[in-house]
Amino acid sequence: MNVGSVRIVGLGPGPASWITPEATAALELASDLVGYAPYLDRLAPRAGQRRHASDNRVELTRARHALTLAASGASVALVSGGDPGVFAMAAAVFEAIEQGDPAWRGLDIEVAPGITAMQAAAARLGAPLGHDFCAISLSDNLKPWEIIARRLKAAAEGDFVIALYNPASAARPTRIHDAFALLRVIKAAQTPVAFARAVGRANERIALATLANADPGLADMRTLVLIGSSQTRLVARGEGRPWLLTPRSYEPAR
Amino acid sequence: MNVGSVRIVGLGPGPASWITPEATAALELASDLVGYAPYLDRLAPRAGQRRHASDNRVELTRARHALTLAASGASVALVSGGDPGVFAMAAAVFEAIEQGDPAWRGLDIEVAPGITAMQAAAARLGAPLGHDFCAISLSDNLKPWEIIARRLKAAAEGDFVIALYNPASAARPTRIHDAFALLRVIKAAQTPVAFARAVGRANERIALATLANADPGLADMRTLVLIGSSQTRLVARGEGRPWLLTPRSYEPAR
Repeated sequence: MNVGSVRIVGLGPGPASWITPEATAALELASDLVGYAPYLDRLAPRAGQRRHASDNRVELTRARHALTLAASGASVALVSGGDPGVFAMAAAVFEAIEQGDPAWRGLDIEVAPGITAMQAAAARLGAPLGHDFCAISLSDNLKPWEIIARRLKAAAEGDFVIALYNPASAARPTRIHDAFALLRVIKAAQTPVAFARAVGRANERIALATLANADPGLADMRTLVLIGSSQTRLVARGEGRPWLLTPRSYEPAR
Repeated sequence: MNVGSVRIVGLGPGPASWITPEATAALELASDLVGYAPYLDRLAPRAGQRRHASDNRVELTRARHALTLAASGASVALVSGGDPGVFAMAAAVFEAIEQGDPAWRGLDIEVAPGITAMQAAAARLGAPLGHDFCAISLSDNLKPWEIIARRLKAAAEGDFVIALYNPASAARPTRIHDAFALLRVIKAAQTPVAFARAVGRANERIALATLANADPGLADMRTLVLIGSSQTRLVARGEGRPWLLTPRSYEPAR
């Protein structure tokens, strides 16, 4: 019997120049592409390849669809933005397997990693992730706000650089304000902050601020917010926006 | 006058299939390649392109060399393993600029991100980074152990998934034991742990354990150590090693 396969493929933040050859090969070899419609729209059509577009915020349904196709023998590429392993489709697939048809555990499943939003933002900014950092999703759709607040506090007390994913959406416009209010109590006023929106796309926009003067309202669902550690600082550039640097060394006296 | 350039290029963890097209183009266009010798050895020679190989652990010297070449008009590709933005060459470059010739601030400098070790490890393991996580370097060459210990404690108290970079080297064999001792006081004994060594290379080796029974001695300088959150769990696979899953939702009652 033909064992179907699922390749969980990361497209990165947008441009083709950030899609790995592994991901490109997986997209070419697939009999079926499954993904959020705008991600599928980025990919050139290919003769004989079936497309199954789905809505946003139906990750588990989309994962089950991919697994069902694979169980019937298909070679499925399940398309994810960024890195499927980071706040994206890989977790949904293994959750679906945990809860679903036992036969799914025998499928040939692989994850093709991709460039995730904080890496794209960091590349534009200089080297803000040059030392210890953490990544936190501000979405409270699937976890209680108390957990998010606990993690923000721990990240501040540990003096990590903080990357905030899903900082705000139309349905959740206020959590980024709550997060800044919480961080402002613990971290220094002059801590550098960056809002990196749609990095790699035509409408890319980057803004620098300090924790004290930042406007959290700048963040939307396409924004990655970076908040420095006590060591993160600006390095002046000849022209234009300064670079952000979190150095490799730590100077407690700063 | 010709303004020189530096492209800080991430080669990812090893295989060519994880090098982005952006990185490949930067390597092809460069007049000069600068990097740690084993990284340069991975790249096919190109007529007319100069190579400047350097030793390990001389990041700042290597960065200054790249900037000096660019200041004389060269198009330099400064080669980094993984993602240059994550515990790698980008921070060294901006540190060198901060301390160096003011003319360097006028150079054309860009970072080409890459797949970093924790993403490669996560792809092999399933979806361990499916929710909030942090990345900590255990090297105490450039920061005091007290800072590392503070961050490990904060990461455990915040219940993050923890990715440990540079867990051990011949010169620093013991810090990974100190880290496990510290984490065992705070985190549950059954917390899943993974040792992912040389992922993507011929000698790739992955081992799963629990925090209680893990042998920290398995980690060397080519190992990425992943330690789960309270939510991280195993998902049985039809054959072989189970997958690691950190689900998108949070169940405080677990």
